[in-house]
Amino acid sequence: VDRTPFHHYWLIDRIKGKQTDVRLLKKFLKSSSLYGAEYSVRGFSGYLCELLIIFFGSFRETVMKCRNLTRNTVIDVNSGEFTKKKGLDNILVIDPVDEKRNVAANLSLDKLAEFVEKCRNFVESPSIDFFHEKEKPEVSKELLEQEIKDRNTGLYVIEFEKPDIVKDNLYPQLERACKKITEHLSRNKLMPLRSGYFAGKMCYLVFETEVKEISAIERRSGPVFEDYENVKKFVTKRREYVPFIEGGRYYVYARRKCNKTENILKDFIRKEGKYLGKNIGEKLTNFTLLKNAEILELDDEFNKYLVEFLTLSRR
Amino acid sequence: VDRTPFHHYWLIDRIKGKQTDVRLLKKFLKSSSLYGAEYSVRGFSGYLCELLIIFFGSFRETVMKCRNLTRNTVIDVNSGEFTKKKGLDNILVIDPVDEKRNVAANLSLDKLAEFVEKCRNFVESPSIDFFHEKEKPEVSKELLEQEIKDRNTGLYVIEFEKPDIVKDNLYPQLERACKKITEHLSRNKLMPLRSGYFAGKMCYLVFETEVKEISAIERRSGPVFEDYENVKKFVTKRREYVPFIEGGRYYVYARRKCNKTENILKDFIRKEGKYLGKNIGEKLTNFTLLKNAEILELDDEFNKYLVEFLTLSRR
Repeated sequence: VDRTPFHHYWLIDRIKGKQTDVRLLKKFLKSSSLYGAEYSVRGFSGYLCELLIIFFGSFRETVMKCRNLTRNTVIDVNSGEFTKKKGLDNILVIDPVDEKRNVAANLSLDKLAEFVEKCRNFVESPSIDFFHEKEKPEVSKELLEQEIKDRNTGLYVIEFEKPDIVKDNLYPQLERACKKITEHLSRNKLMPLRSGYFAGKMCYLVFETEVKEISAIERRSGPVFEDYENVKKFVTKRREYVPFIEGGRYYVYARRKCNKTENILKDFIRKEGKYLGKNIGEKLTNFTLLKNAEILELDDEFNKYLVEFLTLSRR
Repeated sequence: VDRTPFHHYWLIDRIKGKQTDVRLLKKFLKSSSLYGAEYSVRGFSGYLCELLIIFFGSFRETVMKCRNLTRNTVIDVNSGEFTKKKGLDNILVIDPVDEKRNVAANLSLDKLAEFVEKCRNFVESPSIDFFHEKEKPEVSKELLEQEIKDRNTGLYVIEFEKPDIVKDNLYPQLERACKKITEHLSRNKLMPLRSGYFAGKMCYLVFETEVKEISAIERRSGPVFEDYENVKKFVTKRREYVPFIEGGRYYVYARRKCNKTENILKDFIRKEGKYLGKNIGEKLTNFTLLKNAEILELDDEFNKYLVEFLTLSRR
């Protein structure tokens, strides 16, 4: 992602006189955590900033034009062409020294969206504030506690030791674990609202669900009535409840193993935790689950993350 | 549905000597609440029984063959043909005196399924018991109370006065109201397990859900980030929470009006009750909602229905 000697050679004459514009763009991005192609940011690399400035000509032109970036934009720096291509799911910035390479490959769709939003806001009412990192507002523990109560969601944090690996290795593992656990919550009909992860001194996986518990029984689907053989198996199986027919199909109630979101989470991580990532898998053999107001006792950095996660303030 | 003079004329010679078989079939059906084409049963009419006996030749042959009835079976009594036709969603028994008429038009799919099951069971181990109505097992209030607690479902009964109309008018209204309310529960993500209705001295609509309450906030979907105009409207609207971007789309949390299943039900019936059926709509302007163990205080007939609804015993 960093400039290689080829990039350096390609840029050297073209970037002349535009260094200030590049610095402006970088600061503009950095102040909103959009600068850097590493996995923990998934934003704009330095080289991508340089190419954008060369392509659009100036910082001003860059923010003007980038208000209309879409996920299917193709920017060809060599030819100077700005086109749209169907089927893309993020911008494609063709590397002038290697046309097979997308310089924006590490940029996430949501960081692109945030950048576009910032360009629009800046053009509407330009200000020096767009270049300074916003102070994250402090939200008192008392207010957070009240908010958590009022939301009446299931709010859970899995806390575990941070493995001794680089961020670019850690973050994909955290993201994947988050995704797998969220899928498990969905499968169990616990209706996850949103999930996230945070790495400070410890690692934290965060889940918020629309339900804290679900009925102790669930409805299991059986065969259609015409399927004699399977109906026979279905109705003669020893069960707690009597099968019933609905819309020509057999169903039966059965007891769930777990019916509290908390326990379903614990149970899943106990069983599957070790498969949730090469390095974090080892650490997940020993985790703590915290819920609701309990999570306010974690460190201050985590509380700031939480304020954002609960969408009480903008990042 | 009853025999008209044409039916009588068509049957008179053909049914001779088979009256006992017809009586056996009717008793076989009656003992499982499968006899009668009226809406409160939606089973087999007397004329349909006579046609089946004529078509298959005897009671024995009828139950033998009907083990393999499928929802796309066509029985043509005149031609003696037994065929399958794609796209049907219930059996078609062509009336020999009016080939456009389906004698089984009022038969519900689930009653057909129950009949098929009963034929199979009878052929496997024939017994006089198949002709006697089963005693509905008594389940004590204490056991029911424990069961309701153990299920941990939301269990609700809407009780209201029975309008003074015939069953064939009342039952479709009850069924439709049940369906509309269940759809409302689904829309509100309360995960209905099963719904039903019962008419005794009063009318009862019964709902069981997998959740008793849901979070006080819900996630609302906004525009994709590219849609500048709508994004602007979305983010500038006054809200309790800050919008966030996920997968290139804007979302925002918002407070639900109601978050207890009980209140969502009450609220819906207060507002929409009067539109839930011509006659029951009037009565629904004055209803009582009972939940969980409270519903055990309704009359004994309802308790018997409840045992079946909870699938603690077979009808």
